[in-house]
Amino acid sequence: MEQARENPAHPSAQSTLHEVRTAENSAAYLLPKLTSLRESNPHLKLLDVGCGSGTISVSFAKLLPDGQVTGVDLNPTILPRARAVADMAGVGNVEFQNASIFKLPFADETFDITFCHQVLVHIGEPWDALREMLRVTKRGGVVAAREGDYESECVWPELAGLEKFHKLMAGLMSAGGGTPAAGRQLISWALKAGVERNQVTLSYSTGSYSTSGERKILSQGLCQQLRGGGLREKARKFDTGNEEEFEEMAKAWEEWADTEDATLASIHGEILIQK
Amino acid sequence: MEQARENPAHPSAQSTLHEVRTAENSAAYLLPKLTSLRESNPHLKLLDVGCGSGTISVSFAKLLPDGQVTGVDLNPTILPRARAVADMAGVGNVEFQNASIFKLPFADETFDITFCHQVLVHIGEPWDALREMLRVTKRGGVVAAREGDYESECVWPELAGLEKFHKLMAGLMSAGGGTPAAGRQLISWALKAGVERNQVTLSYSTGSYSTSGERKILSQGLCQQLRGGGLREKARKFDTGNEEEFEEMAKAWEEWADTEDATLASIHGEILIQK
Repeated sequence: MEQARENPAHPSAQSTLHEVRTAENSAAYLLPKLTSLRESNPHLKLLDVGCGSGTISVSFAKLLPDGQVTGVDLNPTILPRARAVADMAGVGNVEFQNASIFKLPFADETFDITFCHQVLVHIGEPWDALREMLRVTKRGGVVAAREGDYESECVWPELAGLEKFHKLMAGLMSAGGGTPAAGRQLISWALKAGVERNQVTLSYSTGSYSTSGERKILSQGLCQQLRGGGLREKARKFDTGNEEEFEEMAKAWEEWADTEDATLASIHGEILIQK
Repeated sequence: MEQARENPAHPSAQSTLHEVRTAENSAAYLLPKLTSLRESNPHLKLLDVGCGSGTISVSFAKLLPDGQVTGVDLNPTILPRARAVADMAGVGNVEFQNASIFKLPFADETFDITFCHQVLVHIGEPWDALREMLRVTKRGGVVAAREGDYESECVWPELAGLEKFHKLMAGLMSAGGGTPAAGRQLISWALKAGVERNQVTLSYSTGSYSTSGERKILSQGLCQQLRGGGLREKARKFDTGNEEEFEEMAKAWEEWADTEDATLASIHGEILIQK
């Protein structure tokens, strides 16, 4: 769902923030199922919807050396970066294309695993997206989604600029049709997509930033967004926030990164839907 | 920190809620360190502070067959239940005694591992408790704590009675000197206890209830507390809530347990302090 224009060779700090994501750290809940499906069929087909710069797709491709991974994203400008990430990793069994989660350009029952990460949180009618993901999934396959619950966010220390930032982000998510409290609603959305409760397994995990290095990566990514990136453009579009507020928030993130006992964590909901 | 009087043979629903706790599900972050310490010394001594009905102590004792586990709790009435739990498990290398976390009845540097779970969240000056835990810990050993962050709680669906319950609980925690947003403050508290940042490792995990069976266990435990248990007594002590409100909250928990897409999750902070 990345909207900023990307240089494939030199990713932005925002992309750097996203590019630490791998199947191992962002789809651990899916890996036991992936392993068991791969044991019965090494030629699995996996779809990563909203793949962004493709680091998760590429790590799935490594886990499926005899399989085929397809990454799609609504934003075509991120796809050259995704292809560069695959090239740098020397991975050939992954391809990337432009598509909407609401209208996937694939026949019914094409994929064994249809996956998304931090996509449903940003869109209206996420149950329609799940229904479309289910459509392109084979019987016996799974749909998997991991989505943040921004309302669960724990930040320490409490800084006024960070509270403002949280409100800005939640407001922008809602203004764009998304759901800040997405993680807790995944079963509800699956049922709205026509799934039975007994097809669904829900788990939770956390995302967090506590070490000096982790805090620096997060702070730099958010400061770039606040001082010139896509977040600032989005805030202007919805007429939210002004120059001084953006700078106050960026300074708060810098102070946070420099604070020894600073930490941030939030909950992610994880759903597996057996088709 | 259990305050209700317990029948050792027939635990309350509240104790049943606590007795699902084991080292595996409540101290996973500590187990790699425990394993490596055990490899160099099979005769480890472990202290479980605020052991309650002792299920975590007993599972530590199973993991340390040549070691010795001591569980202490401020509430002496829970200790017979803890001894019954140990007896039923056939575990001999665990003993239980009455003690306060602020004044542990042990010499300096007695234990290899000093652990607590959901204790610091309930007390004032938790850094003094950590300092006391550090005192009884050997050099080269660790202090470990896992504490909830109640402000991170995600509940679905949104029911008025559950929101009231959340406010009641957070209010009672604070009134009793505790900290509802404990999980995020563990590094901060360790620094206040005199520890250096580089001695500290922080992680996070979640506790959650989503399946029909999990929802039933949680709902029954909370309904018992609301309709006659220790929570109700505590609320009266602080002059919070009335009969109708307690009943409204209990009914909301029953409705929640019967709702197919219902779920609850919260973040737990986990700290390891290397001494």
